[in-house]
Amino acid sequence: MNAPIHLDFDTLRRRIAAILRRGGLAPLHAEALARVIAAGERDGAKSHGIYRIEGCLRTLKAGKVSADAEPELLDDGSGVIRVAAGGAFSPAAFECGVPRLVERARALGLAALAINDCVHFSALWPEVEALAGHGVAALALCPSYATVAPAGGTRPLLGTNPLAFAWPRPGAETPYVFDFATSVAARGEIELHRRAGKPLPDAWAIDSQGAPTNDPAAALAGAMLPFGGHKGSAIATMIELLAGAMIGDLTSRGALDALGTTTLAPRHGELILAFSPERFAAGRPGDPFAAGEALFGAILDQGARLPSQRRFAARARAAAEGIALTPDEVALLDRLEAGGLDAVS
Amino acid sequence: MNAPIHLDFDTLRRRIAAILRRGGLAPLHAEALARVIAAGERDGAKSHGIYRIEGCLRTLKAGKVSADAEPELLDDGSGVIRVAAGGAFSPAAFECGVPRLVERARALGLAALAINDCVHFSALWPEVEALAGHGVAALALCPSYATVAPAGGTRPLLGTNPLAFAWPRPGAETPYVFDFATSVAARGEIELHRRAGKPLPDAWAIDSQGAPTNDPAAALAGAMLPFGGHKGSAIATMIELLAGAMIGDLTSRGALDALGTTTLAPRHGELILAFSPERFAAGRPGDPFAAGEALFGAILDQGARLPSQRRFAARARAAAEGIALTPDEVALLDRLEAGGLDAVS
Repeated sequence: MNAPIHLDFDTLRRRIAAILRRGGLAPLHAEALARVIAAGERDGAKSHGIYRIEGCLRTLKAGKVSADAEPELLDDGSGVIRVAAGGAFSPAAFECGVPRLVERARALGLAALAINDCVHFSALWPEVEALAGHGVAALALCPSYATVAPAGGTRPLLGTNPLAFAWPRPGAETPYVFDFATSVAARGEIELHRRAGKPLPDAWAIDSQGAPTNDPAAALAGAMLPFGGHKGSAIATMIELLAGAMIGDLTSRGALDALGTTTLAPRHGELILAFSPERFAAGRPGDPFAAGEALFGAILDQGARLPSQRRFAARARAAAEGIALTPDEVALLDRLEAGGLDAVS
Repeated sequence: MNAPIHLDFDTLRRRIAAILRRGGLAPLHAEALARVIAAGERDGAKSHGIYRIEGCLRTLKAGKVSADAEPELLDDGSGVIRVAAGGAFSPAAFECGVPRLVERARALGLAALAINDCVHFSALWPEVEALAGHGVAALALCPSYATVAPAGGTRPLLGTNPLAFAWPRPGAETPYVFDFATSVAARGEIELHRRAGKPLPDAWAIDSQGAPTNDPAAALAGAMLPFGGHKGSAIATMIELLAGAMIGDLTSRGALDALGTTTLAPRHGELILAFSPERFAAGRPGDPFAAGEALFGAILDQGARLPSQRRFAARARAAAEGIALTPDEVALLDRLEAGGLDAVS
């Protein structure tokens, strides 16, 4: 009786939106969140799939997110498009800013979208993929909350600060895209090691005294470490500066201090840069997209992989067979659909 | 008799410029190169100090760099400032583009400088530091030549692709700045291990068959590896796309194919992004620079270091005592000054 149940994307998306509306989210936000959560589930990115629904509702129940603030677009005609999210979840704010960001990047060669005061829990790949779908290259970055020590440090200060990038591949189904935390591992992976009683690999974390640890519980009480030593630490610091300090929003330290817990989605800002390769390459020999394809071909030719291929394979499977949910996952949807906010622990 | 000889910055800079002029470089390029080479020596960044002079002259002697092309500024009023370097060294092209880049970043919030057809050997920190001195945050990236395998690959394809960033610190002597290769180590470090007969640390390199190796000679015949596994590999790939394909210039593979050797400075492009924190933070609560200082303070408070501190300490020593050269280094300057291109092997 544990055979998976297959749902098509739109059915799953509509079920998630209904749950979020029933939980009290305004339709605009329920629909935008449902799109990214269903996309996570479709791509086999379980950590950003339906597992996130309860966290969204829990943040709402705790009064830490606006259920209905309308994103406000602020455009002074410069290269910086701003969206004031008003304390609501980020996906609707992102969608609000996209058309103007793309238009401005095409006009100027590059443009930035600064989202302020959003509650953030989603992966960044849906955003950079969406922009690549409009023909622009995109780089997205945001702080999170302080759970990562800087290289050589002893205490949490930086966030897992994701960095995502996409490059359009005209004619292909999917762009070149990567999206990763600048910590060695995601916090969820440490939690999974704890539940499984497995020690952590070296250099993932330090304990509350700042000493290296392989004990997941000690790591959760201490701090994670950045990927790539001092280089990853520098990149995570740059993300705090550009996507926190520079856009007049919270750093990861500020976001955690304001929220007081890592169990709810944090509130901060996000920075997305968009580049028009046609504008950059104008007047130069060659085609930037053909040059990109030559590079990807050379990577694949030597047996290396492009990033996100596991997600894209899951997406292709979901397109052919539907999105596979376990009976437990379907029961979770049923329970949330029936219970609304009361079903949330 | 091995006591160091101390030169002040301007004396060293003038001596280097004289050598480069004597070697045939036009004054514009000789002066611009002398500034960055003297700055490297002053900061104790020996790999970009006077050791580079011979390499510059060797590249000139081989006919692989223009001695006198004037950088040409191309400005269509967009966010992308272009400088056509015409096959000359990059520093004069960078200096040519700076005023317009800063002006445009202040006007639009962000702007890009694309340098095309430059011969590149210098570090990127002098550039992002110069921009931070104008009050803008800056991110600089460029390919190099194919000496690094992508993660999971077996052959050189990517360059050591440096990434540099600076954030202004009003009132401080120096900005927040980092500059690093996206390979685990610089090629020069592998060469140093080879000369010292020391094995390489794990995960630095693969041999010509694509197998992991600790043998420096096998590594030099094979490929270096990116820092941080697949994450660093993705960042290095992004640099190929943005600072190669997108600006209509060579990738690291193309640069090596065109040059045919790793012993001369490669010709390709460079991309520099400049951001005006005041423009980004306009209308938002708080001061972006104060937020940056709070972050730096929190890093230092827990005993971690900010990047580039060793360079800045060397810079302070040089300001107090002069730049210390060994008698051998002074003899090198004497020999190059007397011999011009004939003194270059």
